[in-house]
Amino acid sequence: MKERQRKFFNRLSERNCNASVIFSTTDIFYLTGFHFHSTERPIGLLTDPEQRVHLFVPALEHEHSEEYGTVDFVHSYPEYPGTKHPMEYLQEILKNYHFNDKNIGYDSMGYGSPMGYRGPSIDQLINAKQFISLHGVIEEMRFVKSSNEVELIKESCRWGNLAHRLLQKYTKVGLSEIEITSKASSEATMAMIETLGPEYKPHGQTAYALFRGQVGPESAFPHAVTQNIVMSKGDTLVTGAAADVFGYHSELERTMFVEEVSKEQEKYFNYMYEAQKVAFSAIKPGKTYASVEKAVQTYFEMEGITDLTRHHTGHNIGLLGHEAPFFDLGDKTLLEPGMVVTVEPGIYVKGIGGFRHSDTVLVTSDGIEMLTYYPSDLESLIC
Amino acid sequence: MKERQRKFFNRLSERNCNASVIFSTTDIFYLTGFHFHSTERPIGLLTDPEQRVHLFVPALEHEHSEEYGTVDFVHSYPEYPGTKHPMEYLQEILKNYHFNDKNIGYDSMGYGSPMGYRGPSIDQLINAKQFISLHGVIEEMRFVKSSNEVELIKESCRWGNLAHRLLQKYTKVGLSEIEITSKASSEATMAMIETLGPEYKPHGQTAYALFRGQVGPESAFPHAVTQNIVMSKGDTLVTGAAADVFGYHSELERTMFVEEVSKEQEKYFNYMYEAQKVAFSAIKPGKTYASVEKAVQTYFEMEGITDLTRHHTGHNIGLLGHEAPFFDLGDKTLLEPGMVVTVEPGIYVKGIGGFRHSDTVLVTSDGIEMLTYYPSDLESLIC
Repeated sequence: MKERQRKFFNRLSERNCNASVIFSTTDIFYLTGFHFHSTERPIGLLTDPEQRVHLFVPALEHEHSEEYGTVDFVHSYPEYPGTKHPMEYLQEILKNYHFNDKNIGYDSMGYGSPMGYRGPSIDQLINAKQFISLHGVIEEMRFVKSSNEVELIKESCRWGNLAHRLLQKYTKVGLSEIEITSKASSEATMAMIETLGPEYKPHGQTAYALFRGQVGPESAFPHAVTQNIVMSKGDTLVTGAAADVFGYHSELERTMFVEEVSKEQEKYFNYMYEAQKVAFSAIKPGKTYASVEKAVQTYFEMEGITDLTRHHTGHNIGLLGHEAPFFDLGDKTLLEPGMVVTVEPGIYVKGIGGFRHSDTVLVTSDGIEMLTYYPSDLESLIC
Repeated sequence: MKERQRKFFNRLSERNCNASVIFSTTDIFYLTGFHFHSTERPIGLLTDPEQRVHLFVPALEHEHSEEYGTVDFVHSYPEYPGTKHPMEYLQEILKNYHFNDKNIGYDSMGYGSPMGYRGPSIDQLINAKQFISLHGVIEEMRFVKSSNEVELIKESCRWGNLAHRLLQKYTKVGLSEIEITSKASSEATMAMIETLGPEYKPHGQTAYALFRGQVGPESAFPHAVTQNIVMSKGDTLVTGAAADVFGYHSELERTMFVEEVSKEQEKYFNYMYEAQKVAFSAIKPGKTYASVEKAVQTYFEMEGITDLTRHHTGHNIGLLGHEAPFFDLGDKTLLEPGMVVTVEPGIYVKGIGGFRHSDTVLVTSDGIEMLTYYPSDLESLIC
């Protein structure tokens, strides 16, 4: 955490910031190790002009943040809204630690929970010399993962893999998606916690595998919302499986078929399967994220199925399920070793289904290392 | 949906707005019925000066939003970030539907996902006569629930109750919180989906019951983050159980004890139990939310245990787990029949544990109707 904070101070200096105010829960966790459940009660991270790190939390998080947060000071306020608004307490801290007339970096101008929070923006609390947006700066720090972070993602892949095996095993005609999901997720979670023991903290979801409504013809809609559809023979399925490990995510998705596969399903499966291979080959450090998307789109164009695509080929993954950069024509970021990305070109055919595998891969010095390792060939994916 | 939109147009007129741009996922669901999974891809709701309702979505949500969204038009853009930014597409729509030089209401000045999104604010897209903040306006529309909404919350309470029964049944010395949670949640989910059938959509989580790290002395920290603590004899537990039903939440929490209860645990349990009764009695339409908190705090002061409290007494609940208003000294909102609130005064004793029940109640014309109905007396809560 101290090392991350040191790097953050460098980013601040580069941007000529003397101090900062950060509200993003993910970034606060990344910089301090303090993980919390975001509600109506604002939480913020402050770095003052003398480079001391402060957490600003509600009273109910005070002891917890002192225990888990790597910071110099913890400040708390009684409650939100309270008879004195939390932002009035924040204002006093900003004054006491001499934020006035400084170049203050910020990620957003105020705390932004949808859960009933109302409050002033930081420019109403303090006179800065200048307010300087840091939007995306800490996310950029998170682009390249450390070896420890990669280990946590690998651990996530391991339990996602088990959950997915069980999902496939339990998928049967006549069962509903939630039933199968619940059974597979519960059993994988049991194995996971027996193995990892009481020190394990998900900071998210334990092992799970699901369909998110992508069952049968409905799988043609990649909208990722669980319905409760019952499996029929011949259904195309698009799955998802993972486990959060101390806040780190992975992504494993497979196109599966219930009992039988038509020639048409096989045709689309093969397009998708080839597209993913194209993407794997295109990932090399020094290339742009856009170039990977371009390679995939060129393949789809060649096959004349561009109209069946609905989304870009993937994204970074780590503390969030989707992180920038993206395998997207508009993303000129360069791939670097240590980045962890999902590779998931998809095609969607009305009346037949969706076709998408997603794998989580590590960018290495000369290509990729697969972190997910579930079988991806057609024969292995018939339930 | 049409009725909600009509009311929303009234709110706009009252604020002298000719048009609006809304980014809140919850509010878009409330006004249109379109439920989606928020990612890097921006989604917005527009109402134009001729009171037509538009959804603005990524291509992958186009058909889905046409199917589920009660709107006049669906517009989509190919992808984020794309070679042309989604907000450039939005800009064209705003121009085509004559948002320029109008009084434009907005909930936030831009799309605000943490998942790698970057983009301009709406004042960079269009010249308004004036931008008028609607922050909180749709949430206020959600304060009073319709009878249909109350039915959905009751359905949520029903399955939360089952999940909690199973949680209590499976709580044993030597088992870890995730193990118990997983077993109870999975079993309750199975019963729930067998009963409700394939038409049921959670739009959230199916039935669950959990501890969120509040096990033994750790229960004294109300931070709501699941650890994986193993149960010991005499532990104080604070639970939570619910199920989301078409997006609607409820809240049921109980203080339980593993096998035995010390005199000291009993003493604190009784304080909490009495405090909740004080709150129940204080809830009457026409009173302020603050007055309920005041009654509870007066009770705690009388008993000399104010220093053991860490948070206010409760909040509204509905499409979000926490919604404004709050039972808080700073909240002067008046209670009205049809509001659904949680009642959950808590006390936290270092080394011994946390003591909190939470019940979901409906404000009626003369008091409250309990929506959760799990036993709350000490004898019933020893595992």
